[in-house]
Amino acid sequence: MKTKADRNNIKFRPHFKTHQSAIVGSWFKEIGVSSISVSSVEMAKYFAGNSWKDITIAFPLNVLEMDEINELSKEISLNILIDSLETLRMLKQKNENRIGVYIKIDTGYGRVGIEAGNIEEIENLIKEIEKCNGLLFKGFLTHSGHTYHANSKNEIQTIFSEAKNKMIALKKYFSKLGDFDISVGDTPSCSIVDDFSGIDEIRPGNFTFYDVMQKHLGSCDYEDIAVALACPVVAKYKSRNEIVIYGGGVHLSKEFILLPDGSKLFGEIVKFDKTSWGRPIENIYLNSLSQEHGIIKATPEFIDEIKIGDLIGVLPIHSCLTANLMKDFIILK
Amino acid sequence: MKTKADRNNIKFRPHFKTHQSAIVGSWFKEIGVSSISVSSVEMAKYFAGNSWKDITIAFPLNVLEMDEINELSKEISLNILIDSLETLRMLKQKNENRIGVYIKIDTGYGRVGIEAGNIEEIENLIKEIEKCNGLLFKGFLTHSGHTYHANSKNEIQTIFSEAKNKMIALKKYFSKLGDFDISVGDTPSCSIVDDFSGIDEIRPGNFTFYDVMQKHLGSCDYEDIAVALACPVVAKYKSRNEIVIYGGGVHLSKEFILLPDGSKLFGEIVKFDKTSWGRPIENIYLNSLSQEHGIIKATPEFIDEIKIGDLIGVLPIHSCLTANLMKDFIILK
Repeated sequence: MKTKADRNNIKFRPHFKTHQSAIVGSWFKEIGVSSISVSSVEMAKYFAGNSWKDITIAFPLNVLEMDEINELSKEISLNILIDSLETLRMLKQKNENRIGVYIKIDTGYGRVGIEAGNIEEIENLIKEIEKCNGLLFKGFLTHSGHTYHANSKNEIQTIFSEAKNKMIALKKYFSKLGDFDISVGDTPSCSIVDDFSGIDEIRPGNFTFYDVMQKHLGSCDYEDIAVALACPVVAKYKSRNEIVIYGGGVHLSKEFILLPDGSKLFGEIVKFDKTSWGRPIENIYLNSLSQEHGIIKATPEFIDEIKIGDLIGVLPIHSCLTANLMKDFIILK
Repeated sequence: MKTKADRNNIKFRPHFKTHQSAIVGSWFKEIGVSSISVSSVEMAKYFAGNSWKDITIAFPLNVLEMDEINELSKEISLNILIDSLETLRMLKQKNENRIGVYIKIDTGYGRVGIEAGNIEEIENLIKEIEKCNGLLFKGFLTHSGHTYHANSKNEIQTIFSEAKNKMIALKKYFSKLGDFDISVGDTPSCSIVDDFSGIDEIRPGNFTFYDVMQKHLGSCDYEDIAVALACPVVAKYKSRNEIVIYGGGVHLSKEFILLPDGSKLFGEIVKFDKTSWGRPIENIYLNSLSQEHGIIKATPEFIDEIKIGDLIGVLPIHSCLTANLMKDFIILK
């Protein structure tokens, strides 16, 4: 991803919410990354404490955390997102230091941000930001999260192009006010698209680990999935071809993929060797999860092969949520 | 729940996985509870460290944790669950102290346990347990988790009665070998049923907080839901009648209730006052969740009333998962 950003001559600001780990972060530093995104003030504090000096909190400003934000912006170069005059008024009242501000733009996802076509509202907000001491207007930021609902690589490419064009149009329109950046960056788009011309910055995060959802979307192959949950086998039921693992919603999260036959996929199953794991075993799935239990629909052969106390690997549906729940890794080398 | 257990003259062994809190635990102690259930060795260690001396790990024995289990069983009265000779063999090899053993029985849920009708397998297992030094066979334990899929209180009552009858039949059949306990205890059953005759122990947990799922099942009323997630309002969109809160899958979990119209309910919305909260606001729901964002479908009136930076309460769908994610509480008195 770094190579791709370099090739396009754009800034690479990976989202660290996926791993939330200073060690994984250090691997980014080793290849020359110096700017990151996070999704909470708490994560910004954690990474600032691990010598990251340029952090965007890529979540709408929570005005209740202005004290912590002021502490942070004393020490590092911090960027925040806003999308309304109401938020700006509170920010202005409480902000104490120099802070970078992006306007969050909705390019079609419909979650947060000012709609890209709402030029008047965007212009008002820029002008108000620029009147505020300490606030440095940086540009426009969007997240095309609707790529996660795409059914093909083509559809992801189309969503990306539409978002990109809206963002470039904004940049162009507001060039009368200054040279502002545009920042994009969901993992499906950044994985599939090669040409980022016109963009200033990308912020993918999930690609750090990838997961089964990204494989289903076409963002990655199984070989690219870099995290697996090691689950002890605690029970076997030959009569119903099921294996029960110690691995449930409190470990993997309850994220699932709805399969065409109406069943739910909660993870794919791999076998570990000392330093890695193999491809997912065919026709064997984690198809039910409760709080701590996972139930694997297996084959008679697999059940005969597996012993109670074995460790089975589960490739998570959504690695960010699994990593957030587990908080810790074992690094295989 | 304690009163109900006392009235039936049975042991009350509440499941502490719901709250995982020494403080909440102390409230149980104050009313005379001395035995608890937990769902992991880690939780058993935590509560043993908070002076709980009689703990059942109500999850199939994970033989990979025998070292920690041996540490615990040195200090406290510990019970574990098994349901196979394969697990028993490993337990026998590694067990160092006196430990209580329940056989997990499947009374219809189909997750873990020996099927209640499989007398031969149960008998073999009891006899093998009784041959092992240090292992004290305590009885039969079941969890009728299929009550969570029930569509009415009647159905919950029926599931409970069927499970109870199977357990009582086992106890009676094996009275030739000893006087063994039967332990049951999902929250829906324990909330709805009043007569526990024939049962020795109940182990409900979720009733400590209840949640929207339990309300939908008929286990509780809204007034019984004792936990709400306080979520800052970070954005408002009048044009689409939506409010965005800082409260997503990493806070609430991604558990949802599928509504008849096909939409998903991720939580109900309440307003806080200084010491409590009101009933859920009608026609306003948390109907979309991503990692950190929650989107509330609201009314124009509600949107006008709410300001950015306000705290909105979300009654969780599954309080155990929300408490597990948040790890901490503010107690309102």
